[in-house]
Amino acid sequence: MSQSRTQSNVIQTRLDAVRKSLKAAGVQAYIQPRADEYLGEYVPAYNERLLWLSGFTGSAGYAVVLEQGAGIFTDGRYTIQVRNQAPADCFSYESLTDTDLADWLADQLPKGAALGYDPRMHTATWARATAAALTKRGLSLVPLNTNPVDANWHDRPAPEANPVTLFSHASAGATSVEKRQRIGKLLTREGVDVAMITAPDSIAWLLNLRGQDIPCMPVVLGSALLYANGDLIFFTDLKKIVPGAAAHVGEGVSFRAEAELASAIGQLRGLSVLADPEQSNAWCIQQASAAGAKVVEGADPVAIPKAAKNEAELAGMREAHLRDGVAVCRFLAWLDAEVDAGRFHDEAALADQLLRFRKQLPEFRDSSFDTISAAGANAAMCHYNHLNGTPALLPNNSLYLVDSGAQYPDGTTDITRTVAIGEVTEDMQRMVTLVLKGHIALDTARFPKGTCGQQLDALARQFLWAEGFDYDHGTGHGVGHFLSVHEGPQRISKAASRVPLMPGMVCSNEPGYYRDHAFGIRLENLVAVRPCAALAGAEREIYEFEALTMVPMDTRLFLTSLMTDAEIQWVNDYHQRVRAAMAPRLQGDEATLAWLERATRPL
Amino acid sequence: MSQSRTQSNVIQTRLDAVRKSLKAAGVQAYIQPRADEYLGEYVPAYNERLLWLSGFTGSAGYAVVLEQGAGIFTDGRYTIQVRNQAPADCFSYESLTDTDLADWLADQLPKGAALGYDPRMHTATWARATAAALTKRGLSLVPLNTNPVDANWHDRPAPEANPVTLFSHASAGATSVEKRQRIGKLLTREGVDVAMITAPDSIAWLLNLRGQDIPCMPVVLGSALLYANGDLIFFTDLKKIVPGAAAHVGEGVSFRAEAELASAIGQLRGLSVLADPEQSNAWCIQQASAAGAKVVEGADPVAIPKAAKNEAELAGMREAHLRDGVAVCRFLAWLDAEVDAGRFHDEAALADQLLRFRKQLPEFRDSSFDTISAAGANAAMCHYNHLNGTPALLPNNSLYLVDSGAQYPDGTTDITRTVAIGEVTEDMQRMVTLVLKGHIALDTARFPKGTCGQQLDALARQFLWAEGFDYDHGTGHGVGHFLSVHEGPQRISKAASRVPLMPGMVCSNEPGYYRDHAFGIRLENLVAVRPCAALAGAEREIYEFEALTMVPMDTRLFLTSLMTDAEIQWVNDYHQRVRAAMAPRLQGDEATLAWLERATRPL
Repeated sequence: MSQSRTQSNVIQTRLDAVRKSLKAAGVQAYIQPRADEYLGEYVPAYNERLLWLSGFTGSAGYAVVLEQGAGIFTDGRYTIQVRNQAPADCFSYESLTDTDLADWLADQLPKGAALGYDPRMHTATWARATAAALTKRGLSLVPLNTNPVDANWHDRPAPEANPVTLFSHASAGATSVEKRQRIGKLLTREGVDVAMITAPDSIAWLLNLRGQDIPCMPVVLGSALLYANGDLIFFTDLKKIVPGAAAHVGEGVSFRAEAELASAIGQLRGLSVLADPEQSNAWCIQQASAAGAKVVEGADPVAIPKAAKNEAELAGMREAHLRDGVAVCRFLAWLDAEVDAGRFHDEAALADQLLRFRKQLPEFRDSSFDTISAAGANAAMCHYNHLNGTPALLPNNSLYLVDSGAQYPDGTTDITRTVAIGEVTEDMQRMVTLVLKGHIALDTARFPKGTCGQQLDALARQFLWAEGFDYDHGTGHGVGHFLSVHEGPQRISKAASRVPLMPGMVCSNEPGYYRDHAFGIRLENLVAVRPCAALAGAEREIYEFEALTMVPMDTRLFLTSLMTDAEIQWVNDYHQRVRAAMAPRLQGDEATLAWLERATRPL
Repeated sequence: MSQSRTQSNVIQTRLDAVRKSLKAAGVQAYIQPRADEYLGEYVPAYNERLLWLSGFTGSAGYAVVLEQGAGIFTDGRYTIQVRNQAPADCFSYESLTDTDLADWLADQLPKGAALGYDPRMHTATWARATAAALTKRGLSLVPLNTNPVDANWHDRPAPEANPVTLFSHASAGATSVEKRQRIGKLLTREGVDVAMITAPDSIAWLLNLRGQDIPCMPVVLGSALLYANGDLIFFTDLKKIVPGAAAHVGEGVSFRAEAELASAIGQLRGLSVLADPEQSNAWCIQQASAAGAKVVEGADPVAIPKAAKNEAELAGMREAHLRDGVAVCRFLAWLDAEVDAGRFHDEAALADQLLRFRKQLPEFRDSSFDTISAAGANAAMCHYNHLNGTPALLPNNSLYLVDSGAQYPDGTTDITRTVAIGEVTEDMQRMVTLVLKGHIALDTARFPKGTCGQQLDALARQFLWAEGFDYDHGTGHGVGHFLSVHEGPQRISKAASRVPLMPGMVCSNEPGYYRDHAFGIRLENLVAVRPCAALAGAEREIYEFEALTMVPMDTRLFLTSLMTDAEIQWVNDYHQRVRAAMAPRLQGDEATLAWLERATRPL
């Protein structure tokens, strides 16, 4: 299927306009990523530069504009979608994972040619690596002062100035002053004068503010400079700053227009400035160096204090999960009833129904990410999004995978359940059970202080490995407190992570299995790290996980013949906890209560 | 207890002589490590510089000589021994682990002072890190052309010129030419002209030569330059090179005196030279840079081909373990009989008896490391060596830990067994069983291609962790083929390792537990990585371990009440294999046969 002529002409015109700007800037190519200067997973409409330039609406990728032609780089999720959206007469379609950008450019460009980039839209690490790769091939990477998309995007929407919301100190468990003093002390200990805080969720956490600037993540877009004395300058759209915000964040905070960031960085001469090259855009770091600051590259100092949640934050996370459980239980109960009645909805209708149940909760603010509602074989794509194509109808006698989450003022949720639709095969049950055994092994793990996620990852994979299977995604990612559903620095995966799991950190526990063109399985709960309840005679400081998610898993998919007594006991204990926690909250909803009783019946 | 005056005077005189050399060299301090220029675990008598300078005979540590006074740095193993050997009026006793060298020097030396070092006796990585740490403190690190110990060691023994032995191509599974061609291709692919091969075991493997230059490791001390075309220059004591060696190693190898190394490195100008900064001494790398070579820092290219053993090498390792098992079984049978007869020997007598049984094997060449023969509470020190103090008598009703290994022409062994002496407590049995469960979990692990040891380490620790315990050493180290008993690059430990476990790699599986002042436990087998025997429907390339060690574990220490059926089955299966393998080799030794029958009786 190809786009309308008009669409193609519109894109062609935009590309040509950008090419004129490149000629003026003296570069032979330009790379426009999907990211904006905040480098997050979501961008506001006015920063949808890749969409404007290419027509592509996907959540990841970049376009490279050449003097003749252009390429658009996307991953496997978007193979079909990109061909429907980015005109074939304007772009060649390239693989984000398989095509090396530098090699591709070397094939297209003459020696000595330059790739222009907007340093605000790439990390310093990317810029460094790309410059090195291009140099090897006789090309160069050149920062552009003016973004050639912005220069030609005449009907660009204005930023929405949604007012910030004041996040209560009670829910946060600390005031902004306390948080800034605490991080300031860390900076002092490291001999740092000022830290560039560019991750919007770090700023929101630090100031006890939330916003409505982008979908799924309640942050206030902007950048901050945090001084070792705890003072902070927040550069953002001042129209968002409501009366009372200054009093709420407390002494030592000044709000400035984003346009003033450059001059503020210009005044850092001689200071030791901490910046995270994996997280801050290259422009900030280049500006600071140019201003004569001593740039110290290191991790965002807010990351670990934010990740290791305090008692108030954990209490909120627990309550958010109980509340969210009501909506998910209602959805799963409804789904079983629909299937029993022979009504097989499509993936979009199912996602919408789940959202409807969540919206019934007064505290619901937003989804925490785009729901993955995947029927049958579609679930074999572990990042499937039914909105990228035509939503499929739920096939009978199949597995349905639903991965979703919500934002509440007291916490963020993320849950995946895999549901039996009609009769399932013993092979499906076997694979679900192997995934379940891994989920249980990780959930029940105890480990000493200092243990990193990579050391535990194999616990979740061991049963799949033993039978010759695996899954190609991490086992666990961090989750924020009414912030990002993907929060670092801790993670549980095959990849090395130098950050130990600390009490208060919230992680997902989500092993899975994906059979190409057949079905997909994922069992995901969120868990919080806590000190292990008094172990008689323990010689080491031992931690364990506390499950936050309280929703039944589909026991129709479990093969008890493959489970140990302890594993069966785990399922029964978990379901008893779920029933005890959810039943009171479902009073009056007899249908869901009856489903809950059935769903949590002991194995 | 303190040393004789004479000893103290001798050391004082040597220190003063060295101090004169330092003055002449214009440095205010000198560091003498135990290591020599080969940077291995063992040094020949003529390189025992630390012993000459301090009187300390331990296997690790260093002395720092100042204009006034000196310090000797050792680890916990040698706390008592060093005080008995290094005169208290000459040295202050410092902790290798707790005292930071740079801080200590900053306390002793004025700003601007210099620490002299012999760059042949430190890795480039050490020199770089130490120079940086000293600079921070206003001190400097200065390489010395002449070693001040050598300059003053007038009765230094001459190197023994033990002849090399020709290692059969059949046992090696490849000729030296084939090996050098293979590594040469790797160098070519990396754009490297020549690699500095300084690890003696890498050189021995590459040339199919073995030696008798140091205890426990049958290498020929020297250094090599390996060219991308497979040619190699071996710099060593030419007196060791027997007639026939040239023909044995094949075309492309030239033998030169070690004295010629410097001039050879001097001729590397313009070439791309690969050197391993973790393994090569700083001198080689400094010389190459000074000569105008382009030094490429990277891992020893021989390490992985040597570690991933071929079928011939694995066949030798298997046979070596069966043979070694005969000696260890005889020892364990003898020990049980002695204890039954009420004869409680001391740790040295026990180690000697084990060695006697090994020496009865015609193929025995050497121990592969100093035997750890630890009775009762001494075993709580995981690197205990009974030769560092007065060997203890075996207490009745205790645990005895014996960790030993041997060198045979077809392989290297390393085995630890923990033995019940008389009646043991249920607490001891519980801890042994937790260690056993970890040993079994690792032994039975299956994992996909690409998995590193760090990802599996927790499998061996999980049962100890669950009860609040752990052990402070790695779970597994690599083992060479009639080479080093500690061979990289793979390892199974908490520490990150980027080298995946590959088929043919041999590792130890040695979880343990150490109760201070009470007892120590370690259960160690060597295992080889192999592809998993056909898994029906496997979607990934899966590997598993093959146990090489064939010696009973002491089932008197196992609490079956803490074991799963599968774990009990593992013990019974392993013991059945051990009995089947060892019984034929013990024919005629009725006592040991009877012991074997008892020791392998099913649980």
